[in-house]
Amino acid sequence: MNKRILLAAAAALALPLPALAQTDVAALRDAALKDDLAWEITEGLTTEIGQRLAATEAEARARDWSVKKLTSLGFRNVRIETFKMPVWVRGEEKAEVLGGSAQKLVVGALGNSGSTGPKGVEGEIAYFPTFADLQAAPAGSLKGKIAFISHAMTATQDGSQYGPSGGARRMGPSIAASKGAIAVLIRSIGTDYHRNPHTGGTSWAKDQKPIAAAALPLPDAEQLERLLKRGPVRMKLTITPEFKGDGESGNVIAEVPGSDPAAGIVLVACHLDSWDLATGAIDDASGCGIVTAAAKRVMDAGQPRRTIRILWAGAEEPGVFGGRAYFEAHKNESHALAAESDFGADRIWRVDFKLPSSAMAMGDRIVSALAPLGITRGQQPAGGGADVAAVIDAGSAGIDLQQSGLRYFDYHHTPDDTLDKVDPVQLRQNVAAWTATVAIVANAPEEIGRVEKAKP
Amino acid sequence: MNKRILLAAAAALALPLPALAQTDVAALRDAALKDDLAWEITEGLTTEIGQRLAATEAEARARDWSVKKLTSLGFRNVRIETFKMPVWVRGEEKAEVLGGSAQKLVVGALGNSGSTGPKGVEGEIAYFPTFADLQAAPAGSLKGKIAFISHAMTATQDGSQYGPSGGARRMGPSIAASKGAIAVLIRSIGTDYHRNPHTGGTSWAKDQKPIAAAALPLPDAEQLERLLKRGPVRMKLTITPEFKGDGESGNVIAEVPGSDPAAGIVLVACHLDSWDLATGAIDDASGCGIVTAAAKRVMDAGQPRRTIRILWAGAEEPGVFGGRAYFEAHKNESHALAAESDFGADRIWRVDFKLPSSAMAMGDRIVSALAPLGITRGQQPAGGGADVAAVIDAGSAGIDLQQSGLRYFDYHHTPDDTLDKVDPVQLRQNVAAWTATVAIVANAPEEIGRVEKAKP
Repeated sequence: MNKRILLAAAAALALPLPALAQTDVAALRDAALKDDLAWEITEGLTTEIGQRLAATEAEARARDWSVKKLTSLGFRNVRIETFKMPVWVRGEEKAEVLGGSAQKLVVGALGNSGSTGPKGVEGEIAYFPTFADLQAAPAGSLKGKIAFISHAMTATQDGSQYGPSGGARRMGPSIAASKGAIAVLIRSIGTDYHRNPHTGGTSWAKDQKPIAAAALPLPDAEQLERLLKRGPVRMKLTITPEFKGDGESGNVIAEVPGSDPAAGIVLVACHLDSWDLATGAIDDASGCGIVTAAAKRVMDAGQPRRTIRILWAGAEEPGVFGGRAYFEAHKNESHALAAESDFGADRIWRVDFKLPSSAMAMGDRIVSALAPLGITRGQQPAGGGADVAAVIDAGSAGIDLQQSGLRYFDYHHTPDDTLDKVDPVQLRQNVAAWTATVAIVANAPEEIGRVEKAKP
Repeated sequence: MNKRILLAAAAALALPLPALAQTDVAALRDAALKDDLAWEITEGLTTEIGQRLAATEAEARARDWSVKKLTSLGFRNVRIETFKMPVWVRGEEKAEVLGGSAQKLVVGALGNSGSTGPKGVEGEIAYFPTFADLQAAPAGSLKGKIAFISHAMTATQDGSQYGPSGGARRMGPSIAASKGAIAVLIRSIGTDYHRNPHTGGTSWAKDQKPIAAAALPLPDAEQLERLLKRGPVRMKLTITPEFKGDGESGNVIAEVPGSDPAAGIVLVACHLDSWDLATGAIDDASGCGIVTAAAKRVMDAGQPRRTIRILWAGAEEPGVFGGRAYFEAHKNESHALAAESDFGADRIWRVDFKLPSSAMAMGDRIVSALAPLGITRGQQPAGGGADVAAVIDAGSAGIDLQQSGLRYFDYHHTPDDTLDKVDPVQLRQNVAAWTATVAIVANAPEEIGRVEKAKP
């Protein structure tokens, strides 16, 4: 849709003209291609704090850092909203093949893994080439064994294989435990061949006592498969993470107050916590850099119609505790739209929407503003990132700015998620896309009403 | 040089015609492009044994595996020649930044590192952007400090930056210790951005007591540099390797007996040991696969004129103990030529020679046989790999088949040196080049006499 048709359409609908002309949006977008702030935030947080595991001292330090940074940038109502959550911390982790091919493998506990105790456990490997094979194993058939769940995963631009492959991590350990396994190894949910395990949260069924559950890097998983082809394999695992009871985490919030409080809040989110193995540059310091740099640019262009609220959520990784706490605290406020950047900082290539019919023209204006950045409209309903999903599920509009996932699962949840993985040029393209999007949404003259639940 | 001219030249020199026609060499070479044996050896050794640190139980297991394998392939005089050497084994390794930016860094002890003791050491970082900066530091200026030596290293096809960059590792720790340092960190001698340290041997000056010396992966080294830009950094290091006194290592030797013992031995080498962090697929299981597959192909084509001796050297990594033991034991035998494969298994692109004038025509035949594989003649005198350098330095001819080093220092001496880094197609190109070279040398009718020391 070109601008002339857009303006004609707006006039036909008896709407006021867009408060911010598309030419102004284009200028903001193009200026953002020289952005330094997203890098500054990403570099600062990853360097000065390092890893930021949920509900640890490091995450608390990160919150203080964030408040200082967001305040110094001129945002308003900067605050921490704390909440309680169960704390899990990594311990020792060792994996050894026993017998004639005795050798150590690299292993990393999954988040919420149980412990083998300091003496470790020994057992024969029960091998499942796929998660479905584990699901099909008879009850009791893993008694005394260490389950090893493999799977195949291909790097995809849209990240779509994380869902199906991730089942081995999210549900595999609990299912294996229920069938008698004494511990679980999974092939890392990842696409790289480096000796770095991909951690990530696993969930336990209600009455299931957690057992040790850990990920092997791909080279180690394939080594184990080669050994299994030669005959039975016995291993010893010593994995000693601890559940530390309840601790404190928190969300950091900052705002750009809008001129029309009745128009609803535009919520832009990222998460502040990281897994403990790395500094969480792509997951998700860069996301905080992107949404914040975009909000700052829109703020500096003049007061927007809608309040822009920045949410740097705490404790996303172990189970979206921050996102849930935010929703509980703010569900009665009017959110016009929510969006999150939590998929690295590689180039955005697609935009998906969940919009009410009243805001379809706004979607078209966004598509038009993003086109010069190489971004086209996708066909999926936007779901938001984990921390805003509850807000969107409850009926708010949403936009997903989809980054390329081709490299993402090489680094995701591994020790390799460090600053050097962020490409400053692609990071700026992200800021430009977010700046245009936030500028349009925050200033849209249309009402952005509730949306029916998107169809799956 | 084409075949007609070659034959004319041979006739003019009153030499017998080549025992193996160039067309036969070409057929052997091309058949080797379908080789499976090099992979089988590489896969078997790395899978069934795993890491093979010098003078450990794993290296002894590897020797037994090797004897079995070489015997089953039909080689003769398969044997182990043992030798004694000092044993060094890795201990705990932890590195923590202290203070307001408290965080752990990944670190790996260098071979022959001293120990901090189990309680570790704390000190301020003394930063040296290059090895030369450390060399220039005044005597005593590092008292109580942890030296951090950085450097820049670029991936090169000929691997030529390993020499200058490697000084930081080979000599840096001893120099820093002599100036008062309590421990040393170096930026890994490598070219990748993964959280895997590059180990490798360091040397201590005669009267220098070893201190703890360890490598930071590039992401960690650059993190430390970013922190140092913000102000002084204190760190705690706990690095506890141990010197275990003398232990036993050994060389594994196998032969293809030649028809003309007076013509001298063709020595083709690799090393059997690896560092302890990985399974040593490119350093150097694949080298053993390549030279052995080539020797097997030449053997199966009919008895060669010269004896081909395969050397799978022990204990190369901590200081070429196997190569030195071989030279001491065999220096009085006549070696016509020596060559080693110890630079991974990526495509060979260049061949360098150190030949007596009597064998220049043989060199030309080799160049001609390698040309279809995309290999051209280089201008450097061949030096052999570490394990055959003493033989070549003592006056034997040598040939270097130079693999591409563009990926090599991404994996070299890291946990990432695993089977998946070996490309089966490139591995076969290596076997083809070695097969042609060994076939020509072992059957060359010329005398291959002593060579003056190559000029630097």
